[in-house]
Amino acid sequence: MDDTVAAHAQDHVDDARLQQAIADLAAFGARDDGGVSRQTLTPIDLAARRHLIDRARALGCEVGIDACANLFFRRPGLDDTLPPVLTGSHADTQPVGGKLDGAYGVIAGLEVIAALNDAGIRTQRPIEVVAWTNEEGSRFGPGCMGSSAFVEPSRLEAFRASTDGDGVRFGDALDAALGDVPDVPRLPMARPMASCVELHIEQGPVLERANVPLGVVTGIQSVRWFRVTCMGQMAHAGTTPMDERADAMARAVSLAHRLYAYVAAEAATQLRLTLGRWLVAPNSVNTIPGSVTFTIDARCVDEAVLDRFEQALHAAIAEVRAPRQDITVEGMFRQAPTHFPSSMQALVEAACTRALQQRGLGTPIRLTSGAFHDSMYLAAHCPTAMIFVPSRGGISHNAAEFTDAPSLLLGARALAYTVTALAYADR
Amino acid sequence: MDDTVAAHAQDHVDDARLQQAIADLAAFGARDDGGVSRQTLTPIDLAARRHLIDRARALGCEVGIDACANLFFRRPGLDDTLPPVLTGSHADTQPVGGKLDGAYGVIAGLEVIAALNDAGIRTQRPIEVVAWTNEEGSRFGPGCMGSSAFVEPSRLEAFRASTDGDGVRFGDALDAALGDVPDVPRLPMARPMASCVELHIEQGPVLERANVPLGVVTGIQSVRWFRVTCMGQMAHAGTTPMDERADAMARAVSLAHRLYAYVAAEAATQLRLTLGRWLVAPNSVNTIPGSVTFTIDARCVDEAVLDRFEQALHAAIAEVRAPRQDITVEGMFRQAPTHFPSSMQALVEAACTRALQQRGLGTPIRLTSGAFHDSMYLAAHCPTAMIFVPSRGGISHNAAEFTDAPSLLLGARALAYTVTALAYADR
Repeated sequence: MDDTVAAHAQDHVDDARLQQAIADLAAFGARDDGGVSRQTLTPIDLAARRHLIDRARALGCEVGIDACANLFFRRPGLDDTLPPVLTGSHADTQPVGGKLDGAYGVIAGLEVIAALNDAGIRTQRPIEVVAWTNEEGSRFGPGCMGSSAFVEPSRLEAFRASTDGDGVRFGDALDAALGDVPDVPRLPMARPMASCVELHIEQGPVLERANVPLGVVTGIQSVRWFRVTCMGQMAHAGTTPMDERADAMARAVSLAHRLYAYVAAEAATQLRLTLGRWLVAPNSVNTIPGSVTFTIDARCVDEAVLDRFEQALHAAIAEVRAPRQDITVEGMFRQAPTHFPSSMQALVEAACTRALQQRGLGTPIRLTSGAFHDSMYLAAHCPTAMIFVPSRGGISHNAAEFTDAPSLLLGARALAYTVTALAYADR
Repeated sequence: MDDTVAAHAQDHVDDARLQQAIADLAAFGARDDGGVSRQTLTPIDLAARRHLIDRARALGCEVGIDACANLFFRRPGLDDTLPPVLTGSHADTQPVGGKLDGAYGVIAGLEVIAALNDAGIRTQRPIEVVAWTNEEGSRFGPGCMGSSAFVEPSRLEAFRASTDGDGVRFGDALDAALGDVPDVPRLPMARPMASCVELHIEQGPVLERANVPLGVVTGIQSVRWFRVTCMGQMAHAGTTPMDERADAMARAVSLAHRLYAYVAAEAATQLRLTLGRWLVAPNSVNTIPGSVTFTIDARCVDEAVLDRFEQALHAAIAEVRAPRQDITVEGMFRQAPTHFPSSMQALVEAACTRALQQRGLGTPIRLTSGAFHDSMYLAAHCPTAMIFVPSRGGISHNAAEFTDAPSLLLGARALAYTVTALAYADR
């Protein structure tokens, strides 16, 4: 590929403008501790959406919205009949999040458009920057509703029935959000896209540990969620001899201990295990637990490793189960792994390499995303890629989330190169 | 001892009257499932107190109340200047309890008085039947407030500040209860008592397993409560490699596993371990736990065994502690074991033996109480003893709590013998 134009676009990414735009969006829901509280479709999210619409229009973009309130900021192409190159991410946050998760990808997408404008580059294909609705899933479950429904519109009906902690339906919040932007034309769902590139903070420690500011994402881990319930018999902690007990917590600890040991023995496979949510009944100091429920979040890039883990889970349950102490396991959720096309990875690698080498910073590394992203759904719709920048301490979903400005600039430069290369010619 | 008079009293215990009295009291707070809800100082508890006052007066008793609303039903002695023999228990229940826990001891005490009346026996010492306030501790913590404050009145001030789930102060509930019985004269706290005998259901499986309907309680187990906090670092379940994690739950499970193993190895000592209450933060499926707190309830009759357990706990913590993962342990409560005087045990054994042998049922067994009782505090005040009857399935603090009528009768007969023997002569 002749990368002259892509490199030209990359060199027009502006550090000060990028930082200012991140700060401007972070003002919507800003917290005293430096964090941001901007859950999806709340009044502060609607205000942030209006801010993004204004910013995009100032850059010359056409703005559209679809039935899931996904916002699209479009820079026309020379041939507007061609499917666009899509970039962006989401602008909603966890109840307490940082300034970058999602927001960075949206702002960097708009910065790419600003850079193209400054460079005087016209691309063959249109470029669209998207702000997906409800990636976080913290107010309305599940997460990634916007990208999921865009790719498969039939999912929207079930999403509309989801309610938040106050009993508000997602569908009603959606209708209010759509009514809030009567000036924005409606776009169809599932429109063809030429390709999609998402820039995001890593939310893990791999890049920081490797001391490399840019990562080429190869794909997204597979995940399986289970709910394990250990039954026992509630009884008095003082009066019940040990050999008379049906202690649900003793069973749960025994099972959990086996699972941690199994995963430690499988360290080479990069299998990840989290036993994150525990419910104990009656949860009293002096009562033997009558039931213990805990969740399993198991992730790996390799489905076969997860298959083996699932077999080991059932074997461990069979070992631990005791008379009067049934243990049940139910699958809550499973998501197959996402593998981004190698051609898309190669393009992102070239973009990252140029951005790094201009600063004498070596080459990017390849890594898998441990977290879900909207790109997981887009990968089923069009050739998709992701670029990561480091997260200090691997911390995210937290006011302490942080990436230094030079890394954020490098990420936006790599994105500009990638998007321009994809959009410049009708390939 | 010439047991003629004690045996005479024992033989006048009336099965039908006892069963009726148990049913009459159980009507206060009766539930559809057969259980009883009569938490301390609730309106239903105050109504039950009035019922007991009326019943005691009908039996010729003088009724008094002290500053902790403990109710005393007094059968005068030939020498009323002598300290009385005390029996009884408590009439409050857990939020969901049975008909017998506490209530049985109070009703059986009144049955002893009825039997003495029927037998025409006058005792040298007065006999008092007590209904202690707030033994359960479920509405206002801690438990055994009434007996604890009776023995050590300086404790009452702190108890009065205790609040229930609705913010009601124990002191205010107490004042209302005292105001509810203006016809009942006030008695001083910490009055001298000649001795104390409490009849109670076992709340454990030992008597049922031994198929023996009466047990001589040798004492009450020692207990130590600890709160263990395992610290970690909250992080994303997907993005954080296993070797980068500071998973508080992995530490907690490792520690708990060691504690269960230690106690299993110490089975011969009858050490009992319950890890009953768990708090996990943030308790989310896909977030690595940042902190896990769990409680330890460790009990044994042998203080040396608990000393060794505490050493083993600290050793296990030292093994499990990891960088960035501190584990702290704090003592929440400790109660030394209660040992009832051998002379009191011998008298109870004689009483139980006679009751059993009349029915051809062999001899009682000796056992330790795993649960706390008001007698734990009384033992510091006067020579004290306890008698147990079996609990079906060891179940208590539950609507399913049950003891068969023949066993309840045997218990009341053993109590009548014991109380009469203690009160008849000025010994």
